[in-house]
Amino acid sequence: MTTAYRDPPPYYRLHVFCCVNRRPDGHPRGCCAAKGAARLRNYLKARAKELGLDDVRINASGCLDRCALGPTLVVYPEGVWYGYESIEDLEEILQRHLIAGGRVERLMLAPETAAPPRSAGTPSGTA
Amino acid sequence: MTTAYRDPPPYYRLHVFCCVNRRPDGHPRGCCAAKGAARLRNYLKARAKELGLDDVRINASGCLDRCALGPTLVVYPEGVWYGYESIEDLEEILQRHLIAGGRVERLMLAPETAAPPRSAGTPSGTA
Repeated sequence: MTTAYRDPPPYYRLHVFCCVNRRPDGHPRGCCAAKGAARLRNYLKARAKELGLDDVRINASGCLDRCALGPTLVVYPEGVWYGYESIEDLEEILQRHLIAGGRVERLMLAPETAAPPRSAGTPSGTA
Repeated sequence: MTTAYRDPPPYYRLHVFCCVNRRPDGHPRGCCAAKGAARLRNYLKARAKELGLDDVRINASGCLDRCALGPTLVVYPEGVWYGYESIEDLEEILQRHLIAGGRVERLMLAPETAAPPRSAGTPSGTA
């Protein structure tokens, strides 16, 4: 449907959103913040700047609602999702996907690896 | 380049990111939060839920770095940016773009309407 429009060219070549949402301690769904998401996102942002990736934006975001798989990030416009745990994971995403245009298959989230928000039976994220 | 990959289907049909970044009062670049972004984003999120748009996610995000045009939001995967001021603006984006797949041309941001982050001469957003 969107191909019927001549939308402007992308403002960022790649726009990365890293969930840094924090829920209260003990929440049954957990949260990315409790798994170090803010520190990890800061690393990725600093590295992108260090490497001069001016056309890539590393954003913080509210809850992306795939909490059990977190920390999570999503890369647009391609809509590829990753779950990661470490700086090494992010470095691999940076080098192989954000710079080289490839994929880090071992970290990619498949669509079926998280239930849709409304069927999870628990409240959605606050942000 | 991304078309060389068979990426998973989109997890959300549309993924909307609304900047809710707040800078200190008096900051020369201003911020979306000072222009009511949080309240407006909450409206859009509630309306999407009310209308049963389960395949559309309305996320809060950190600084999208087009502050002078804010509050701003971006709709992925198409990468269409909007600047908006009111609930009426958001309702129009909701009905015409998020539901009907069209565009609200009067609110769309053109690529040239904000300088790239690195040339602005002021610090980038904190989130």
